Amino acid sequence: MPPGRLLGEVFRACPTGRRPRGRPRTRWRDYISRLAWERLGVPPDELEEVAGEREDFNLAAIYVSDAQYNRNVYFDTLPQAVRLYMLYNHWALKVLLYFFMLVNLSLAIFEDPAVYPLPIWATMLVEILCLLIFTIRLIHYAKVILRDKFWKDPKNICIIVILTLTLVDMIIYGALKAANYYGVRWSRVLRPLLLVNVTEGRQLRRAFRSIRNALPQIFYVFMLFMFSILIFSLMALKLLGKRGLTNINGTPYFTSYLEIMFDLYVLVTTANSPDVMMPAYNANFFFAVFFIVYILINTYIFMSVFLAVVYNSYKKYLKEEVRQLVRAKRHKMVRAFGVLQEQREEGGEPVVTQASWNQLVRLVQPNLSNAHRELLWSVSDDKNQGAIGKVAFVQLADLLNIEIITIKSRPHPLQSLCPSLYQSAPSKLLCQLVQHRAFVMVYDLIILVNAVFIGLDEENPMIANSEWVFLALYILEILLKLYVFEPRVFFSKHSFWNWFDTIIVISALIATIINSVMNHFSSRQILDIVFILRVLRLIRVVDSIKRFRIIINTLIRIGPAILTFGQLIIVVYYIFAMVGMELFKGKVTFYEQSSTNLAKAYCGNPLLNGTDFAKLNYCKNNFNNVVSSFILLVELTVVNQWHDILYSGFATVTHISARIFFVLFHIIVVIVILNIFVAFVLEAFFVEYSVDKSDLQTSLERKIEELELAVAQYVTLQRVVSGGPIEWVVHFNITRPICEEPSKLEQGHKLRDDSQL
Amino acid sequence: MPPGRLLGEVFRACPTGRRPRGRPRTRWRDYISRLAWERLGVPPDELEEVAGEREDFNLAAIYVSDAQYNRNVYFDTLPQAVRLYMLYNHWALKVLLYFFMLVNLSLAIFEDPAVYPLPIWATMLVEILCLLIFTIRLIHYAKVILRDKFWKDPKNICIIVILTLTLVDMIIYGALKAANYYGVRWSRVLRPLLLVNVTEGRQLRRAFRSIRNALPQIFYVFMLFMFSILIFSLMALKLLGKRGLTNINGTPYFTSYLEIMFDLYVLVTTANSPDVMMPAYNANFFFAVFFIVYILINTYIFMSVFLAVVYNSYKKYLKEEVRQLVRAKRHKMVRAFGVLQEQREEGGEPVVTQASWNQLVRLVQPNLSNAHRELLWSVSDDKNQGAIGKVAFVQLADLLNIEIITIKSRPHPLQSLCPSLYQSAPSKLLCQLVQHRAFVMVYDLIILVNAVFIGLDEENPMIANSEWVFLALYILEILLKLYVFEPRVFFSKHSFWNWFDTIIVISALIATIINSVMNHFSSRQILDIVFILRVLRLIRVVDSIKRFRIIINTLIRIGPAILTFGQLIIVVYYIFAMVGMELFKGKVTFYEQSSTNLAKAYCGNPLLNGTDFAKLNYCKNNFNNVVSSFILLVELTVVNQWHDILYSGFATVTHISARIFFVLFHIIVVIVILNIFVAFVLEAFFVEYSVDKSDLQTSLERKIEELELAVAQYVTLQRVVSGGPIEWVVHFNITRPICEEPSKLEQGHKLRDDSQL
Repeated sequence: MPPGRLLGEVFRACPTGRRPRGRPRTRWRDYISRLAWERLGVPPDELEEVAGEREDFNLAAIYVSDAQYNRNVYFDTLPQAVRLYMLYNHWALKVLLYFFMLVNLSLAIFEDPAVYPLPIWATMLVEILCLLIFTIRLIHYAKVILRDKFWKDPKNICIIVILTLTLVDMIIYGALKAANYYGVRWSRVLRPLLLVNVTEGRQLRRAFRSIRNALPQIFYVFMLFMFSILIFSLMALKLLGKRGLTNINGTPYFTSYLEIMFDLYVLVTTANSPDVMMPAYNANFFFAVFFIVYILINTYIFMSVFLAVVYNSYKKYLKEEVRQLVRAKRHKMVRAFGVLQEQREEGGEPVVTQASWNQLVRLVQPNLSNAHRELLWSVSDDKNQGAIGKVAFVQLADLLNIEIITIKSRPHPLQSLCPSLYQSAPSKLLCQLVQHRAFVMVYDLIILVNAVFIGLDEENPMIANSEWVFLALYILEILLKLYVFEPRVFFSKHSFWNWFDTIIVISALIATIINSVMNHFSSRQILDIVFILRVLRLIRVVDSIKRFRIIINTLIRIGPAILTFGQLIIVVYYIFAMVGMELFKGKVTFYEQSSTNLAKAYCGNPLLNGTDFAKLNYCKNNFNNVVSSFILLVELTVVNQWHDILYSGFATVTHISARIFFVLFHIIVVIVILNIFVAFVLEAFFVEYSVDKSDLQTSLERKIEELELAVAQYVTLQRVVSGGPIEWVVHFNITRPICEEPSKLEQGHKLRDDSQL
Repeated sequence: MPPGRLLGEVFRACPTGRRPRGRPRTRWRDYISRLAWERLGVPPDELEEVAGEREDFNLAAIYVSDAQYNRNVYFDTLPQAVRLYMLYNHWALKVLLYFFMLVNLSLAIFEDPAVYPLPIWATMLVEILCLLIFTIRLIHYAKVILRDKFWKDPKNICIIVILTLTLVDMIIYGALKAANYYGVRWSRVLRPLLLVNVTEGRQLRRAFRSIRNALPQIFYVFMLFMFSILIFSLMALKLLGKRGLTNINGTPYFTSYLEIMFDLYVLVTTANSPDVMMPAYNANFFFAVFFIVYILINTYIFMSVFLAVVYNSYKKYLKEEVRQLVRAKRHKMVRAFGVLQEQREEGGEPVVTQASWNQLVRLVQPNLSNAHRELLWSVSDDKNQGAIGKVAFVQLADLLNIEIITIKSRPHPLQSLCPSLYQSAPSKLLCQLVQHRAFVMVYDLIILVNAVFIGLDEENPMIANSEWVFLALYILEILLKLYVFEPRVFFSKHSFWNWFDTIIVISALIATIINSVMNHFSSRQILDIVFILRVLRLIRVVDSIKRFRIIINTLIRIGPAILTFGQLIIVVYYIFAMVGMELFKGKVTFYEQSSTNLAKAYCGNPLLNGTDFAKLNYCKNNFNNVVSSFILLVELTVVNQWHDILYSGFATVTHISARIFFVLFHIIVVIVILNIFVAFVLEAFFVEYSVDKSDLQTSLERKIEELELAVAQYVTLQRVVSGGPIEWVVHFNITRPICEEPSKLEQGHKLRDDSQL
């Protein structure tokens, strides 16, 4: 009987096809064997491969990889569901999903009001395609997880609602447009919410949750803050309203309560300081005291309290979140253990054998080297028993997260090709020269000189030609280093600066050549690229100064989590941009510098004639398309002049209630999200500062030392702080050049910890 | 032989007159007795009072009070030095010192350039008086502490140098003025440094130390930050310099490297956003990306990193500081114990008897009630042995820092006067009414109605008269509360809101009466005061909402430490104001609104004609006297428009290098000091959030419960965070009204912890 058929028979005998939870694996195998023998007459040795073995390993691998990446998906444990789930987690599908997410979001560029207008049917078609992809992905997900879990999960409901509403909106909008009526594509504000609600938006959801958790506390401080503004406004009205003071433009100063409130709110953002105070201050010295007290209380103290409240709730929440993640991880690892466990002796503790473990790890991380896997096993099975218990097994997810970069100490290709030349005295001297500190210093000096030359006028032919000299010098540097260091070591995955250097220098070389070839048709764009590349090259100097390197490394390490915040900001910006475009599109027009249209002086809107908005040439700060809107929102985030943009700008061309939109944006983005961002950077830095090695890491290190692994010459321990739990990177990096003898290395430098400032 | 003479004789026999360190007190007494008997023939029982007993207690009391207030003074332990030291610590001398410090600082108001000019001889005379006072205080200090400690202490050297330099400067300046030459009073910048260097400036020195400790780390981040600005400037020069773009005023855009650097530095402060970007953005969409990346990196990330670095070093330093303070406190208490210790039995542990302890505590805190002292003793001597060992004794300083406010449950005065009336049914009903929650709500409603009335036009006679109704209502409220609550309880030291209410209402009553009496000569000032008082009354509503009360209480608790920062800011502002006045005085003139002088349009300086500075009416933002200077510095701290003030203002009227002054101010105040301030507020809030009762406090509470002290009905525990170590306040407060029976109180409310948010 072919194994496939046999499997079917066994499944029929045992409908779920899976070992019931908690039933030890060896006993289950006995049971299945007996079943197969009794009902089908299959001898036990023929069963070996088919009795759910592969499914077992798949299931265990899924548990481990979920634990490793902190996925909390209650997937169905049926073999076909597990296979579907493995497919669901495939990177290509994720990339596809995010690609269509991006397409969906960037439709705003082509929809009215568009940067590049496309006909409605085109954008609609693309949008329907996107919706289709999202629906398929959702159905895939529904097939993977348990039915009741699917309907209990708010994020799935959200996606369904968003997709339905979008479809409804598209139909209505299409119908309205077809009948030539005015229509609003209101469902566009829902688009970025998909980013939050897809399974992969874990980090983003966490960021939103941390905001939601901070909200109640922020709310009370905000109410008190508003109360303070109300009281100060009332006082200002009473003190200043009746004095007949005037603003610069001659309007009465501080006579309307609402105006005062708004002005004082703007003063908190410091955007109208000191203008708002000048009329009163000009009238009398003492009124300045009023404003100073106001600024002290509301700008400094309240804003610090906002940060404190946000930071505190962020920290508290983060702790709770990490605790939950650790618990969930342990739970998943215990399940994986339950799937693979065997009983070696009667009544003994259940264990996982090395063979099963190896098979599992190969499934979870196929590209792990054998040496690496053996290292991890020897850490887990430190008593060399050939099997590990539950406690040791549970560590696996964390062990896999410790990134170990092994770079084999290979001889230099030149040494293999012509050993006599490469080992000759002049070659060795060259090696020593390149490795000397002076070499780095000379090149730092060259970079500085280059910086001066860049600053000079490049139209001077001598300066222009000097660029070739610098390029040659940089290329020489790279070649020399490649001569001394093994190329695969030089271009290893984590040698950020080597990659950076090489890419920049080669791009600069190409761009400069193109530029000089097309000398007479020299395009501005290529020149711009050349300039940017030249300047970027200067950044390399940072790497030479240890203190700078440490700060930069910390920043690079918290980079991925900053990207999560980038997503969060984009979600919020997108929503505000969509609403802003509906409210303010076409109210302000930008005319090119060269335009001779008279309307240019007032941004195409007579209402703006003579306003600061027009005078300051802010016409391009408008909501006429999605790109302008985003840039305007960045300006509003920076806060400065936002009262001008709003007040003499958008409130003038629409209605005074336009303030609501702008103030809301300020509260959400500046008071809440930026504070969360600062809290996040603070916390990430503190984690970096207060770094302690985990037990696991220590035992790994000890093991590395014990094993005296020939590959590990320098071990760099780096702590990676991503938004979620803490991961460790053990970074084996050979900075030792090949032409030096390994035995000359000082043992004292074996362990270097970069993470301490 | 009279005791005084006897004392002298004994002193002669034993020159130091003091027990050598470490020699137990009982043995020392035996030794002195023997000495007195052998050499002077004085019987031991006559010696009791004079054998250095009082000096012992003085010394121990000084140690305890130094430990209590964290003073670290290495005073001489000779009896006369100890007495001098006690005088040195007298509050009146400290008040006198700070008064003259204030006089010295406020001389700037009267010196050229003056707000109120005084002749030079007058200010000089006052200054000499101040210097004299400071010198006397320093000499007093020199007498108190050991000679070598005095000269090793940098703060004493600082004071001597400051005093000498000031004197030298005054002589030179006086001579120059007498000879009609131009002179600069450069020593005025040294004045605020005295605030830092006097013995009492402990907190301020700590704040400066925390800045100094953060400096190295800030320095590296700052260098990287400057490097980033340099790189971006170079890129901006290359990208934008050659495009022939112009600023709004027609000047070429981004053509000079130095100008670009400065503009981009200002952009970090956000002060010139989005103006600096508009010409480039108007030319091309993509240049906005350059500025957005710049803002993201330099404004958001680097500024957060500054805060992180400052906060981190602040926290680390604070921890170390607190550890040192605790060690020093323990050390001093051990010394105090060494002075007072006795050996009750041969070979037993040295102890301090209750009698000595009582005498000591009476010396340290004369105004402590007997009940309070007994409570503290019973906490220390929890086994009731009549004496305590070293461990229990060392706690004393902390115990004394736990503020226990005991308010005796006295009968209401009216009850004593006419008990039958006060205990009658209508009276009791009134009591119940006033204590009802509805009473508070009705008055909150009245306050809100009042707020609306204040907002309305007060020239309407109905509105003006309504003020009397509100005043009457508020006075009625206070009278009713005084009827129900015992007056001394109502006006107890910690009943902040009762005091606040009463003072505001009574002041408002007086001011309103004065205002209506002088109806026809109604002065604007009195009306202003009336208005402010009316509005302040509204603040009371905050107290009714628990959440608000908690936030406000936290703010009030961190208030004293914010005052330390106030001093720090004043020191820095004063120095910058003095320098700024020398550099920029008289360059810009302010003309009153009514002035018809044509120079008004350009602030009296033709160079300013047509500049934004003049257009925005900033003429009063000048360095023409110390008050204007301070207000201008506040505006510069708020940062907005500082480039206008500087650029089209002070750089125009003086020289481009005026930037150095302004940028320096920005770096020191905004980047360093404000970040320390934010760090401080954050830390203070976190301490408030993560409040845990100390062991000592818990045992004190238990003791209070055990003793069933009749006085304590509600115990409020409040944690006080001052800049230095942590102090505790145990607040016994009777909110129970007198006309209610004590037995009706619910036991469950006995302990209420206000400090949890």
